[in-house]
Amino acid sequence: MRSRTEKVLVRRWASDRDEREPDEVIVEEPMEIRLDDHLVTTTMRTPGHDYELAVGFLYTDGHLAGAPVIQVRYCATASAVDTEFNIVTVETGGRAPVPVARLTTTTSSCGLCGSVSLDALCDRLAPIEGAPLFALDVLASVPERAEVGQDLFAATGAVHAAIAFDEHGAPVLAREDVGRHNAVDKVVGRLLLDGQLPASGLGLFVSGRASFEIVQKAWAAGFGAVVAVSAPTALAVETARRAGITLVGFARGDHMNVYAPA
Amino acid sequence: MRSRTEKVLVRRWASDRDEREPDEVIVEEPMEIRLDDHLVTTTMRTPGHDYELAVGFLYTDGHLAGAPVIQVRYCATASAVDTEFNIVTVETGGRAPVPVARLTTTTSSCGLCGSVSLDALCDRLAPIEGAPLFALDVLASVPERAEVGQDLFAATGAVHAAIAFDEHGAPVLAREDVGRHNAVDKVVGRLLLDGQLPASGLGLFVSGRASFEIVQKAWAAGFGAVVAVSAPTALAVETARRAGITLVGFARGDHMNVYAPA
Repeated sequence: MRSRTEKVLVRRWASDRDEREPDEVIVEEPMEIRLDDHLVTTTMRTPGHDYELAVGFLYTDGHLAGAPVIQVRYCATASAVDTEFNIVTVETGGRAPVPVARLTTTTSSCGLCGSVSLDALCDRLAPIEGAPLFALDVLASVPERAEVGQDLFAATGAVHAAIAFDEHGAPVLAREDVGRHNAVDKVVGRLLLDGQLPASGLGLFVSGRASFEIVQKAWAAGFGAVVAVSAPTALAVETARRAGITLVGFARGDHMNVYAPA
Repeated sequence: MRSRTEKVLVRRWASDRDEREPDEVIVEEPMEIRLDDHLVTTTMRTPGHDYELAVGFLYTDGHLAGAPVIQVRYCATASAVDTEFNIVTVETGGRAPVPVARLTTTTSSCGLCGSVSLDALCDRLAPIEGAPLFALDVLASVPERAEVGQDLFAATGAVHAAIAFDEHGAPVLAREDVGRHNAVDKVVGRLLLDGQLPASGLGLFVSGRASFEIVQKAWAAGFGAVVAVSAPTALAVETARRAGITLVGFARGDHMNVYAPA
């Protein structure tokens, strides 16, 4: 795996000190995601688990549309990004629909770039039926148990984590990335490659806020619950209620807010 | 101004309580940005200061290319978003170049969607010359002085702030949004509409991390310094050094890290 952190010289300043020393910062690089022969989007991401990111993005954004993933590979064709390891092609043998032509650069927190409309993202999804009823004390305990999966955050303070957890609140899969949507896509991509979608019986923990895109991705993947350390947006609440997803915000161990169901 | 927060019923749970009560959450809605007759992007944003957001985005993303802003207005033509107040058109009388055709939905943290490449964003910018040398103790004091500009955060815990500050560290202009790039674009848009660009003599405070896009936008607007409460990415550090921008991370009142200049 390519390096996900980089050492830079930093000047540490305080009223009583002023020293230059190395500091570890998170790497943020563009990655092109291609579906068969088509460029779908370019996202700013932290290198690592690139195949999962590509597959997860194409799945949650609706591009696969049920087509099987035959192969995932780095490719070295001419491109705006500078190395072959920043271009990932997902092959479906032409079975996925041709993506609508677009040329976008996605930043480290943008997972919906390239989507035609919010309605189009959600209208294709059915409410999640029979999702397990996670016990509230289990959901409240998730953030503390999730700390083990956040190595990059411990090193750099600059990444988001997404962690799939089981009905007992135990982490089963953790990914980190400079972009919160990327972390979620990496988790979803891994589950898809392992044949474990929809994610029935699993919940999704995110280390930051719950915006619309996070809930939409969780919905697409079939998670029964989303637990966020920080606040949800109004649209995230509305979407979770529509999806039948339990949405928890401000989860802090001994207390939390349950925003959905209403 | 349209409402930027919304009341939802929330279940507040703790080991010793379980009550339903109203909670204030931040509004997140799509907004289309149009340049003359062309759709440039759709961004997820918090309503309010929409004209500034549209103008700031088009400026920092390079679409205006020196063209004057003749008029900014809401428009009600047929669109994927549902109200006329979610579509903003910036008129340059056709003097801005026709944007490359693209159809993108941008999430609440994506300010570069629609950009062709990172190099294209930076290559058009010259290093910032003669930027004021902000005193280090002034830069360290900015976060504490910036708290007054963060009303929405106080109410919802779900927004980012961007604040322009002067050489003494005093806030001169504050904007908040569910997307950090939107908050920056709103500040830049206001300065542009007031004829105050480039932002010579000013620094830019952001309440979260400093990713590439934040530094690129600061560079485009001519800020001499970027002060972030949290960590920068490696690419943000590299970009700030190239731009000649002073980049501070982990600014916490009595201490901070200075990442640029090297």
